[in-house]
Formats: sequence, C-alpha cells, structure tokens
Amino acid sequence: MKEYLKGDEWNIVEEGFNPDFNKISESIFSLGNGRFGQRANFEEFYSGESLQGNYVAGVYYPDKTKVGWWKNGYPEYFAKVLNSINWIEIDIKVGDERLDLATSKILDFKRTLHMKEGYLERQASVQLPSGKQVKIHAQRFCSIANDRLAAVQYTVTPLNFDGTIEVSLGLDGDVRNADANYDEHFWEPVTRVEQDDCRYLTMRTKKTAFDVSTAFYYRAYRNGTLFQPVAESLTREQYVGYKLQIDVREGEEITLCKIIALLSSLNVAKDDLFNESQAALASTKANSYDDLFMDHKRAWIKKWAESDLVIKGDISAQQAIRFNIFQLNQTYTGEDPRLNIGPKGFTGEKYGGATHWDTEAYCIPYYLRTADSRVAKNLLLYRYHHLQKAIENGEKLGFTDGAALYPMVTMNGEECHNEWEITFEEIHRNGSIAYAIYNYVNYTGDRRYLADYGMDVLIAIARFWKQRVNWSEEKQAYVILGVTGPNEYENNVNNNWYTNTIAIWCMKYTMEVLRELEAESPSDYQNILVRTQLDIERETGDWKQIVDRMYLPENKELGIFLQQDGFMDKEQTLVSDLDSKHRPLNQHWSWDRILRSVFIKQADVLQGLYFFEDQFDLETIRRNFDFYESRTVHESSLSPCVHAILAAKLNKEDKAYDLYFRTARLDLDDYNNDTEDGLHITSMAGTWMSVVEGFAGMRVRGNSVYFSPMLPKQWDSYSFMMNFRDIVFQVEISSEGIKVSNTNAEKDLSVHAFNRYHEVKASSQIKIVNKQ
Amino acid sequence: MKEYLKGDEWNIVEEGFNPDFNKISESIFSLGNGRFGQRANFEEFYSGESLQGNYVAGVYYPDKTKVGWWKNGYPEYFAKVLNSINWIEIDIKVGDERLDLATSKILDFKRTLHMKEGYLERQASVQLPSGKQVKIHAQRFCSIANDRLAAVQYTVTPLNFDGTIEVSLGLDGDVRNADANYDEHFWEPVTRVEQDDCRYLTMRTKKTAFDVSTAFYYRAYRNGTLFQPVAESLTREQYVGYKLQIDVREGEEITLCKIIALLSSLNVAKDDLFNESQAALASTKANSYDDLFMDHKRAWIKKWAESDLVIKGDISAQQAIRFNIFQLNQTYTGEDPRLNIGPKGFTGEKYGGATHWDTEAYCIPYYLRTADSRVAKNLLLYRYHHLQKAIENGEKLGFTDGAALYPMVTMNGEECHNEWEITFEEIHRNGSIAYAIYNYVNYTGDRRYLADYGMDVLIAIARFWKQRVNWSEEKQAYVILGVTGPNEYENNVNNNWYTNTIAIWCMKYTMEVLRELEAESPSDYQNILVRTQLDIERETGDWKQIVDRMYLPENKELGIFLQQDGFMDKEQTLVSDLDSKHRPLNQHWSWDRILRSVFIKQADVLQGLYFFEDQFDLETIRRNFDFYESRTVHESSLSPCVHAILAAKLNKEDKAYDLYFRTARLDLDDYNNDTEDGLHITSMAGTWMSVVEGFAGMRVRGNSVYFSPMLPKQWDSYSFMMNFRDIVFQVEISSEGIKVSNTNAEKDLSVHAFNRYHEVKASSQIKIVNKQ
Repeated sequence: MKEYLKGDEWNIVEEGFNPDFNKISESIFSLGNGRFGQRANFEEFYSGESLQGNYVAGVYYPDKTKVGWWKNGYPEYFAKVLNSINWIEIDIKVGDERLDLATSKILDFKRTLHMKEGYLERQASVQLPSGKQVKIHAQRFCSIANDRLAAVQYTVTPLNFDGTIEVSLGLDGDVRNADANYDEHFWEPVTRVEQDDCRYLTMRTKKTAFDVSTAFYYRAYRNGTLFQPVAESLTREQYVGYKLQIDVREGEEITLCKIIALLSSLNVAKDDLFNESQAALASTKANSYDDLFMDHKRAWIKKWAESDLVIKGDISAQQAIRFNIFQLNQTYTGEDPRLNIGPKGFTGEKYGGATHWDTEAYCIPYYLRTADSRVAKNLLLYRYHHLQKAIENGEKLGFTDGAALYPMVTMNGEECHNEWEITFEEIHRNGSIAYAIYNYVNYTGDRRYLADYGMDVLIAIARFWKQRVNWSEEKQAYVILGVTGPNEYENNVNNNWYTNTIAIWCMKYTMEVLRELEAESPSDYQNILVRTQLDIERETGDWKQIVDRMYLPENKELGIFLQQDGFMDKEQTLVSDLDSKHRPLNQHWSWDRILRSVFIKQADVLQGLYFFEDQFDLETIRRNFDFYESRTVHESSLSPCVHAILAAKLNKEDKAYDLYFRTARLDLDDYNNDTEDGLHITSMAGTWMSVVEGFAGMRVRGNSVYFSPMLPKQWDSYSFMMNFRDIVFQVEISSEGIKVSNTNAEKDLSVHAFNRYHEVKASSQIKIVNKQ
Repeated sequence: MKEYLKGDEWNIVEEGFNPDFNKISESIFSLGNGRFGQRANFEEFYSGESLQGNYVAGVYYPDKTKVGWWKNGYPEYFAKVLNSINWIEIDIKVGDERLDLATSKILDFKRTLHMKEGYLERQASVQLPSGKQVKIHAQRFCSIANDRLAAVQYTVTPLNFDGTIEVSLGLDGDVRNADANYDEHFWEPVTRVEQDDCRYLTMRTKKTAFDVSTAFYYRAYRNGTLFQPVAESLTREQYVGYKLQIDVREGEEITLCKIIALLSSLNVAKDDLFNESQAALASTKANSYDDLFMDHKRAWIKKWAESDLVIKGDISAQQAIRFNIFQLNQTYTGEDPRLNIGPKGFTGEKYGGATHWDTEAYCIPYYLRTADSRVAKNLLLYRYHHLQKAIENGEKLGFTDGAALYPMVTMNGEECHNEWEITFEEIHRNGSIAYAIYNYVNYTGDRRYLADYGMDVLIAIARFWKQRVNWSEEKQAYVILGVTGPNEYENNVNNNWYTNTIAIWCMKYTMEVLRELEAESPSDYQNILVRTQLDIERETGDWKQIVDRMYLPENKELGIFLQQDGFMDKEQTLVSDLDSKHRPLNQHWSWDRILRSVFIKQADVLQGLYFFEDQFDLETIRRNFDFYESRTVHESSLSPCVHAILAAKLNKEDKAYDLYFRTARLDLDDYNNDTEDGLHITSMAGTWMSVVEGFAGMRVRGNSVYFSPMLPKQWDSYSFMMNFRDIVFQVEISSEGIKVSNTNAEKDLSVHAFNRYHEVKASSQIKIVNKQ
C-alpha cells in the first residue's frame, strides 16, 4: 500500500515528485473523454520510468498469439488496445540542455487531477545540471464538450538566466505497445500534411486498418501576449510538427497552447478524416484555449450534477468515490454500441483493453442506475451482435446446435485470450451475460428487449449449459467438470458452486421468460421459436431435468456451500494467518502453491449469493460470508465491492467500511501493487455499488426502489443521484433518515424504506425517518 | 496410421518417393553415434517439406522463455538441443538447373536404412524440367568405430546427356532451430580455416558458449578413378567449402566422398579443437571411404551381437524391434555422465532434447538389462550431480530445508519447462528418480551407490514429499492436492493415486535403506546423517506418519484404484466408443474437452501397478487393467509398453501383442501423427521391455532372474541378450520352452522359470521345458 497522494475532496494531488511511483501516477492522473484518452505522461522528454500511453476507443490490433505450448482451440491472436499517436509532446531545450525531470534537481513539484473540472495540471521548478533553473506549468484536457478536441497549455519560465529555449512540438506516430508480443510496430503512416499553420498526421493500424487522424496548431504567448516565434517544420516518416527558437529573459513566461483534433475511422469515414479534422480545428480558431477549456469545464460541472456521490465527514472516502466516478465517466459514455469498457479504460495496455465479464457483472448495474437505460441497452446489444461469433466459438470447442460460449476476452466477438484454464474453462461468463439481460429487464421494465434480442442470447446460452453438463452415475446428479470459477486462484475444478448455480439459473430463467412470452405475446413467442429453431418440448424438457438434478456442493456441517468439490481437503488457514511479506500472493507464490492453498482471489460463492440473494436466508449468507471472507485475499479488483455489499447487508458495519475503502482506494493507494499497469476501471462501478447497494441497501423489486440504509460511523451523511425508469432522483442518507428528491417533473417515484412504501411525487422530496 | 514403408527384417525401406511423408522419413531414417546425429535430410538442395537437423550431444542453448501469461516460478529460458552445422551438403547443378527432387520428375527412388551395418542409402533417378535425366546414389554414416568421424559418398550419373555438373560441398553454420521462440540465430562463427585440402568451421553457441568444430576434405572419382576436378573455394561468414566444375559424359559415374570430423568443446578443450580436428582428418587419409565404412560396419555387427532381439516368424515385429534397438544404440552409449537421453535423440528438436522422467522410468531399466552397469550408474549420477539445483528449484516454489524437486525438463539441472500444470505440478517425476535408485541397486546389487550418492537424493526427495502433502481434516488423512499425474490429460487434480503411492513409497524406501545402512555400515550411516543434516527422529517420524495415513483414492465397488478424486464423476465412455476421426484427441479436441473426458493419455494407475506389482494380487491388477486400458488412448509414446507388460502378465495374449505392436511400430507407422517432429527415442526402451518383461515375463528377485514366458501365436520364437551382474546371457523362447546361454566364462547364473530355480553354469546353456 502506498499513500503518497494528498487527501482532498475534489482533487488528486501529488506534492513533491515521486519518480519511483511515476508509472502509478501516470495511471491515476489519466484523462479521457469516452472517445480517446491517455496516461498522465509528461509533455516534455522524460528519461525516467514511464509507460507511454494514448488510446482511441475501439481501435485495436490482433497481435499474434504468444504461447509457450499451443493447445487446440487457442485463438490466433490477442486483440489489443493500441498505444496511438502521441499528441502531447512539447519538448524543451534550454541552450544545449534538454529539460528532463529525471536528470534535473526538483525544486518544487505539484501534480493535480482536477476532477470537478476534468483536467490535469502540473507545476514544477527544476534546476538543470548546468545550474539553470526553470519553472514549468502544464495543463491539459480531453474535451467532453466536443469529443473530437483536446488541448495542452504549457508555460515555461527561466528563473535565473536569459537565453534561448528550443521547443519541439508535434504529433508522433512512431509509438509502440509495451506489451507487443513480438516487438512489432502496429501502425503504418498514411498521410502527413502541413497546411497553413496546421499539421496533420494519419496513421493506420496494420491488419485491422483503422485510421487515426490527429491534427494540431499551436499559439505562443510571451507574458500572456500572442507572438510568433522563429519556427521551422519538423517532419519524419511518422512525425509532424515544429521546432521553435525563442529568446527569453529571466522571469518571462513563455506559454505554448496546442489545440488538437483527434478522429478515427470508427466514427468518421476514412475519406472524410482530413476534412473533418480540418473542420474540427477550424471551429476552434475563433476561440482561445481558455474558451475551449471553459466549454469543457462546464460540461464536467453538468456531469457531476447528474452523477456525484457526496460523502460528508470523510475526506478520504469522498475523494475516492469521486475518483471512481470521474474515471468511469472519462472511459465510457454509452453512446456507441460498438464500444465497451476495457478493464483499464484509457489508462494502460493490460488485459488488451478488451471486453470481459466485468461489463455484465459490474458495469451494467452501475450504468443502469446512473444513466439513461439506453446505455445499458447498448452494452447488451454489443453481446447480441456477437451471438453468431459466440456460437462459432462454441463450435470450435466441440459444441453444436446453436450453443453459444461467449469469449472470455474480446474486441469483435471473437475469443482472443489464450490460457486454457481461463479461455476454455472460465465459462461462468456465459452466466453473467444472461444475468445482465435479467438485470436490465428487471430494472428498466423493458420486456420488449427480451422478445427482440434477449431470448436469442438466452436460448443459445441455455443450449451451451445443456451440452456442458454431464450425468454422474456416482453422484446420481448432473455435474459440471473442469471449470475455473470467478476465483481464478483455482483452475480446472469440478462443480464450482457458482458456475453450477448460475448454469441452472440461466436455464430456469430462459424457461420462465419463454412461458411468460407465450402468454403475453404469442406472435413474439412463435417468432422466437422459428428464429432459434427451438424444439420447445425436447429442449426445455432437457433443461428442466438438469435444473432439477444439478449437483451443488455444500458442507452441511458448516452450513456452507462449497466453492468446489474437494475444497475442504485444503489446509484451512486464514488470511489473518498470512505473513504480510507474502502479499499479494500472486507476486510472491508460485502458481501451484496458490492453487492448492485455501486462499481466494475474489468473490466466488459470495458472488453467487450476491446475484441470487433472494434465494437464501440471511443466516445462510452470514455463514458463507464468515467462511469465505476470512479466506479471501481480494487480489482481484472485482472482489471487495461484492463483499462490501454483503457485509453491509449482514450489518457488519466495520467490515463493510473496510471493504468499501479497499475497493474505493484500490488504485489511489495501490493495494495490489499493480496500479502502474493502469487503473481498475470496471471495478470502479463496483465501488459505487458498494455505497448504493451496500450502505444504502438499495434494491429494485417490482416497480419500487428499496432502501435499507446504514450510515458508517466515519460519515456524517452521504447522498447520490439515481436514475430509475426515467426518474432521476437524489438520495441523501444521514443520521436522521433518508431524504429522497424526485427531479422528474411528471412521474412519481415509489420508494420502500424502513418497512414501508413511500410515494415521492414528481418534483418533490420526502424525508423518511427510521421509526424503529 | 501410415504404412508406406516396406517390411524387412534388417532394413527400413521406402520404395518410391513420398514427398508428403518426407518429414516423417527424415525422422525414421535418422543416423547417430551417441556423440552426434542427424535427420535424414537430402545431401542436395531440396525445396519441398523438410526439417533440417544436425545435433551434437550436450550442446544446448537457453532460448528465452515464450509464454502467454507469466506465472511466478517460471524459468527464464527453455534449454534447447541445437540444430548445428550442416555437414552433409553436396549440392548439384546440371548446367543451369539445380538438382531438386521437389521440382523434378522422379523416375525411381529408394531410401534404405541399413540397420545391421548402420548406414543410410538413397538411390534415385530423376528428370529435370529441361528433360535431362540423372541418377544419384548417396550413402552416409556417423561412425561408431570412431565417434569423431562421419562420411558421405555421393554418386551422380547423367543418364541422357553430356555436360557440366557444378557441385557445391561444404560446411554450413548458418542454420536455425525451427522451434526458436523468437526466430533468433543461436550461433556465432568462431573460425573458418582453409588449409591444404581441408576445410574447417567452428561455431559457438550464444550464451552457453559451446564450440562445435566441423572439418572435412573430399575426394572425387570418375567411374571409380580418383581425379581432381576444377575447384574453387567457396566461403561465406558461416560457411566454408568448395565449388567444383566437372565435365561429364552420359553414363559416367562421378563420385564425391566427403570425410568429416566433428568435435565439440564438451569433449575437447576449445584451444585444442582445431588440432584435434586436423588429427582426426589426418588419421583417415591413409584409408579410403570404404576402409572407414568397413570399420564402422564391423562395430555395428559387434553391437548387434550384444543387443539383438530376434523374432522369428513375424517380419513386421522383427523389423520394429530392431528399429527400436538401433535407434537407442545410435542415441546413447552411456560413456559420459554429463549426457542424458533426449526424448527425440538426434532426430528432432521437440521437447528441447532435454532430460525428462523418461530416463528413469523407461531408459534405466533398459540399459540396466542390456549394458554394463556403468551405463545406468552414469544416468543416476547425472541426477546426483543436479541435486543442489533440484533443492534450489524447490526453494523457488516455496519448499525449504533441503527439499528437492527435480526439474521436469532439464539440460543442466535447472528447470526449463514453462507450463504450470506440468512444470510445477507433475511432481511424480521425483518419485521415478528415487525409484531408479532402487531399481539400480536391486538389479546390480551395488549397495555402495546408496551410501556414496543415493541416500542424499532419497532424503532430499522424501523431504519434498513431507512438505508437499497436507492434512485433510475432512478425510482425516494426508492428501496431495493440485498435481498432474503421468496422465497429462488431467491437470491440477487432487490425490492422483500414482503420485500419492509413489510419494509414500519414496518415504518408506528411504527409511528402509536408512535402517539397513545403520546396521550394515554405521560409519556410512553417520556420514549420511551429517552430510544431509538429517534429524533422524523428527524427520523419519514425520515420514512414517504420512506413510501410515496417506489417502489413496479407490472405488471399492469396482475394486479399482481411482486415478484421482472425482474420476467417477466423468461420463464413463470407452475408447471403443470414440469415432476414429477424433483421433488422436490432442489434434482434434480442445484442451478442456480432453481434460473433462474420461480418456487417458498414458498409463497412470497402471504405471504404479507396474512399478509396485508385488504389492498387489493378480485380480486387483486385472480389474484395474480392464478398467483403465479401455479408457486409455495411448497418445503418449510411453504408454503402450507398460500396458503391454501388464497384459502379458495377465495372460491377455492378443492384447499384449496389439500393444507391443503399437509401441514397437509407433514411429514406423506414425500412430500418433507426430513422427515428423522426430522419433520417440525414450519409449523405444519400453518396447524392448514389453518383449522382455512382457512376453518373456522377466523379473529380478534377489540374485535370480525370473522368466514367465509367453509365445505370441504370430511368432515361432524369439531371443534376446541380457546382462545381469556382469553375466551376459542369451535367452531364446520357443514353443519348446526357454533356452538360456550363459556367455560368462566364470560366473554361474541363477534362473527361475516354470516354478523352479535352474543353475546355468559358466559358458554353458540349458533348456528349460514347461512341464505343466
């Protein structure tokens, strides 16, 4: 755990430079606008530890698979989010010396992520090896007011000398992925244009042929007054820009503003990229950097009004939750059904930036509750559009007759992960994709989605489970052998309770919806049967038999479900017995040792209890929680939020608070010693849930929103915004009770709290006091 | 299965060229002399499918690990046997046309591996695209009379033209491994010398800095008469040789003889390599190719006299067993304790040419029975010398206090395999290393080996098992979790019966030998305690407790041992139910499907019953055999021989014969569709065992050799040579009984057959008739 960042309600602040943590800071201070984003690399050259990163949503490359030992069924490539054109560069030479914080003496340094207004700021005074001192002040943002624009403002001031400063500023397409499997360069240059004061660079990805166009112009100011420095063109094959020579006097402020347009062929036709880039830049020319900045800041103020979660009395918790919300908002806006949410967003390369089950299990619940239902629907449609590919993926692994196995990791519907124990065996992902459909329909009431799209996916998934189980003569039950559950610290186990449970749930839910549709809408029902060629009697007959006779491992003596067969054979040590020098285990123990140990990476049985809580009584949940939480090391970012929600449900306030803190500050405090690779974006949705479903106890049942609030003793109050069936409302929880404010001008809201239903009329609020 | 090779008692013959099978033929027709060897590549250029391969014993390269997903504990490199200098090249140009069998019309073709005399011969007549026809006749050998020498004789005859032939012949160091992880070149040139009529090339491996020196001179003959063609030097950075211009007339035979010396820094100091190469070549100059060839052939005749296994009445079986013996003799001579037996010998790159448990489980029994005991001892010493590295390997995985885990794959004692389910979990290899010590001591009676070397290894292995088990509260027994047994079609299973069984056997045997040594030789005993810092009471107390309370899975109803926990949950289909289009499974099924299926790659429970047969009654062995054989696909070369031996023991003659055939002709008929990668050298030892321990029922108990012979109905008789405690004797089994001929001039031999002991006096023979 690292705690070098300052507590602050609205900002993330690094005071004094921590070069050893620079890659961590680069992740934490990342910027994005849903279309593109970047790590917080320095504008000027930096020879210290750094992971360069600029990313464009949906632009990926199928990197040739790297594998020690090939297994049948492995995909040929791993689709990777690409490090793209570097557009921040403002490189400074003072006389003969290159400004480089790694080789300079740092006199003062402050880096601030302004979350309220969505920008990154950096101030530093440094002394170069020659003794010359300069001050720099950099600011930049990726506009959310116009998601084609970004800007950098960079001021440099000589503190103890007069002299010449040489500035290189441009667009650099000669970038590589640090995680390229074979050190290949994934881009080739398309065009490089120098026209008037604008510079354009278009690069194309190899194989996938995505074009990314970046363009910019700059303005220079001396003590705030526009001037024209001596400039020459600077071009290389994959680079376009300028070299400036500027004479400066001690104390003079030289400011460079770089206005950037960034478009990709994902949203603009390739032939139009140049014109659209031109237009985007031209649209800014009547305005200054400050004008663009103001538009952007206003958009952020508006976003916060819709999505803030205020915690009073606990600065560290407040900072953390805002950081989570801020990064989620930077990553995904929900407007393009071709896009999804990579585990690292725009903050790193790890996990390829591709779609995982995180989206369905963690992000969809968040977006359902905080955004228009269109957003969650787009995420569901993403999978619907990949159904055919999921069926093909199933065929590759020996399944037939329309059985779909969705990929573990994907960009375009094809599997692109290659670890047999995960790729082939972590099949529970199919369950969360079905569960997300249920979740969406339950929350939004949009039953049309089932008839139009959802049933096709549900039936294909049910078919998969039917073929994936087998009958055990010995157990006289259906079993699911050879899987990896959510807890990836077990591989190739038999009868993972979570997987078996979600498998039968999928079949049950599919049958239930089929029955309902048959009654509600016979023509839709008939269409579905025809479309999916469902042999209703035979197939649902099979499903029912499996649902009735599925084996679910448990230990009756302890009153717990067993994570998998044989779990009780393990040495039953607890996390509290672990020497901290062994943590995180995955950085200290060999894989076999992790596998045979009792320690759990992330919620597994508890994930199932969370999804299906209504099927279990509180005591069952408590016994399982006590058993599994004491064995869980939470080395997956997706774990503590689920445990936090259950802890709150079980009224374990301290535990819930600790777990909330762990999920909320996972990256800020680098709990798992891996923030340098990028932020854990998808788990940030879980953080929000751990407040709203955890402390506030929010659930949706029928047409009402339920609350069962808890106020951690560290907090004075907390409040958040929600969106339920087009009603945006605010909830504030304090020691006095709950205040619910319905902002919808037309619709009333039904709320359940403290054992009673309450009607919150349109445009009004009520206060509900706990009378117990 | 492919059956394109002709049945012949002493030869492997390909009549008519099969370019589609060329890589298979290159493996099958391989040559070697224990020091170096090569695939049967063509001397002249060939543009068709081919895997070039020349290998030098013990010369390896640590190729940087290629892995999709790094796990703690993975080794940094995979040590690979290296494709080395190509010395066979005799490249032919006829006018402007390059002789290339891939682009010529083949008029006739015959390739013969002469096993009796140890050489490769190829005759072909071809028509070039221009219509010119040539005949070629090539012969070559790697001398076993002088293991520094090799020779090629190549005759080319124009059949329908007069003209000029250009011949390039040299030494080519610019070779690569087809399996290089990152397409790197593993060699760098050291020296290239042209002196008199000799040419020398020395190459050095990167990182490991092994030098390999190759040298040659040539002689040219026209219709058998020596002549001097027009010759010019041909050199490149990593090549040295000649280019010859020869005018020929239709029907004239031009013969080129290439005499080669090959030395490596493994057996000659680097500074002496040049001189020794010179000397090696010089030693040949008084002789002709035919003289050298005669020496070599004589050496082979002698070898066969010591090692032949004659089967009468079954040409296919006879050819196969000779092929197995021939390849084993080509691969390993047992003279250098630094060398071991790579799974592919000198016939391919796969499995890195490194040492596996094959050596202990399959090869040591073979060499014990067929060679001087020094050979098996050298193989044991190889592991003894790696003990410290094995302890370090254990430490890497979290073991302490002198616990050794021998590597799964190694060149120098360090682990160099990187698949967690094998590298970290296939720990039964430790058992076979201990078992080999027992086997050696039992067979040779050399108890001194235990006191001097064996105990150190046994104690370190027992310590490993002690730490690797854990107590299961649920089972009230010790368990071994998370292993891969010999059957690699299961990964990360709990309580593999074989592993648990051999683990406790290791501890038992170690304690037993300690007790015996304490009585026999107190000073050795004390030395061992001090050397290994053994806390005799505490440690053997722990071992005893584990031996007494180890869990061994079984199914009492079926009366079988269970391969592992949960095995009966699988769908119990049989190999006979499998569609042949799915075979071999590993080329058709995805890995998860293989894992959750019931199908077994290789003997696992049966391997244990074979090792420890005296612990089990025949009915137990029969029940297990019937259960497991029907589920075993034998997709490991190491499998059918063990099943064959047990089938013979169970008097299942047809089954034993089928399994013998499968092991014996595995490569000749390409059963597993992988012979193109190289031959399955280590399993060839198992083939010999399946005749001697299988059909002949040979066992050693006390100071006697036991036979319990069976004569397959396809055979008239069979006979083989054995070596037992310095007594070399021949056994012949026919319908009349057994004939045993003791060739030792001094010692008598005690033989047990047909329920009685028989004394075979020195230099005499007896015939034992079955009187039952």
